[in-house]
Amino acid sequence: MPGKFISLEGSEGVGKTTSLNFIRDLIESKGHKVLVTREPGGTPLAEDLRATLLANRKEIIEPDAELLMMFAARSQHVKQAIMPALESGTWVLSDRFIDASYAYQGGGRGIPFERIAELENWTLDGFKPDLTILLDMSVEEGMTRTRQRGKPDRFETEKMAFYEEVRNAYLLRARRDPERIHLIDASPDIETVQRSLQSLLQTICFAKN
Amino acid sequence: MPGKFISLEGSEGVGKTTSLNFIRDLIESKGHKVLVTREPGGTPLAEDLRATLLANRKEIIEPDAELLMMFAARSQHVKQAIMPALESGTWVLSDRFIDASYAYQGGGRGIPFERIAELENWTLDGFKPDLTILLDMSVEEGMTRTRQRGKPDRFETEKMAFYEEVRNAYLLRARRDPERIHLIDASPDIETVQRSLQSLLQTICFAKN
Repeated sequence: MPGKFISLEGSEGVGKTTSLNFIRDLIESKGHKVLVTREPGGTPLAEDLRATLLANRKEIIEPDAELLMMFAARSQHVKQAIMPALESGTWVLSDRFIDASYAYQGGGRGIPFERIAELENWTLDGFKPDLTILLDMSVEEGMTRTRQRGKPDRFETEKMAFYEEVRNAYLLRARRDPERIHLIDASPDIETVQRSLQSLLQTICFAKN
Repeated sequence: MPGKFISLEGSEGVGKTTSLNFIRDLIESKGHKVLVTREPGGTPLAEDLRATLLANRKEIIEPDAELLMMFAARSQHVKQAIMPALESGTWVLSDRFIDASYAYQGGGRGIPFERIAELENWTLDGFKPDLTILLDMSVEEGMTRTRQRGKPDRFETEKMAFYEEVRNAYLLRARRDPERIHLIDASPDIETVQRSLQSLLQTICFAKN
């Protein structure tokens, strides 16, 4: 594929947005066009699904239904936004992708990884990011940082134990696929995190360019 | 299961709503409580997904994304509405269910039946209606009847050829599962259709009651 596909993962408060902007600038500084996108979302239909998923509602949302909605949004996102960009040589930088389903609906909601893998195979048929960056910090520190922001959505109001499971699932994914998923410690000051990001991208993405 | 689950299938213009009301009255006349519901829909979340699916929009909706949304709505519908009703002894009468996915996303949009069966197994794990009634008539007659109604939604504006494929897929499903899916010719006058419905329900559902 002419373009490269990078996903950025991590749970609440790890500084994904700041890192996303930094990575985008870095890629652009190498002369590449970048599509910055997010999951769930990235197309009008997928953004509608995001709004439906994140809305506070009285109805209990079944984990299976939530996961199927995530994959519906992802299917649309990949075919209507990500693939066309990559084919035209544009790089794609996504705030979350497939690993988030394992972390949130797997670790968080308890759907077995094998069951998620069935939907992954059905929907993506082997398509994966070229590089996934996992920003990691303790749940306690992440939640403290989140508190300084606006009104929490449905996911953000979930409990501490949920986020521990999310983090553990992310770390397990990283251990199982170390070629693609690279862990970055997100707890130090911003300059240190950005030096790590720069060094990682230089090695993985820019070395041959 | 204490309650019985009946789904009513058929494409545009076959008179599903009239038949649905007739069947509901018939079941109630036997002393049973009935939950009348529909797909996609049947819970607030699933109705939100229905609105997202049926909205006219410029974006091309990928068949896979559409199918995943249908199964997301169905998963929620089954676990939050259908199963609790059946367990409490209430009968459930649904305007469309699983066979509609094979007809519309399979026949209509060209997703192979085997691929749909994978999502069916993932989502429903063998759960099926006790009885499915397929109201059948020629596409030409069905479309003429639909024309007399309001503003067409996204599915209704699809072309004639699409509905031929939908009908053929429904008929194929009926041939493959004749124990569950019963075909009723919906082209005669309403009294004749209702006599057929009454006789079918008497034989299949009320015989042992």
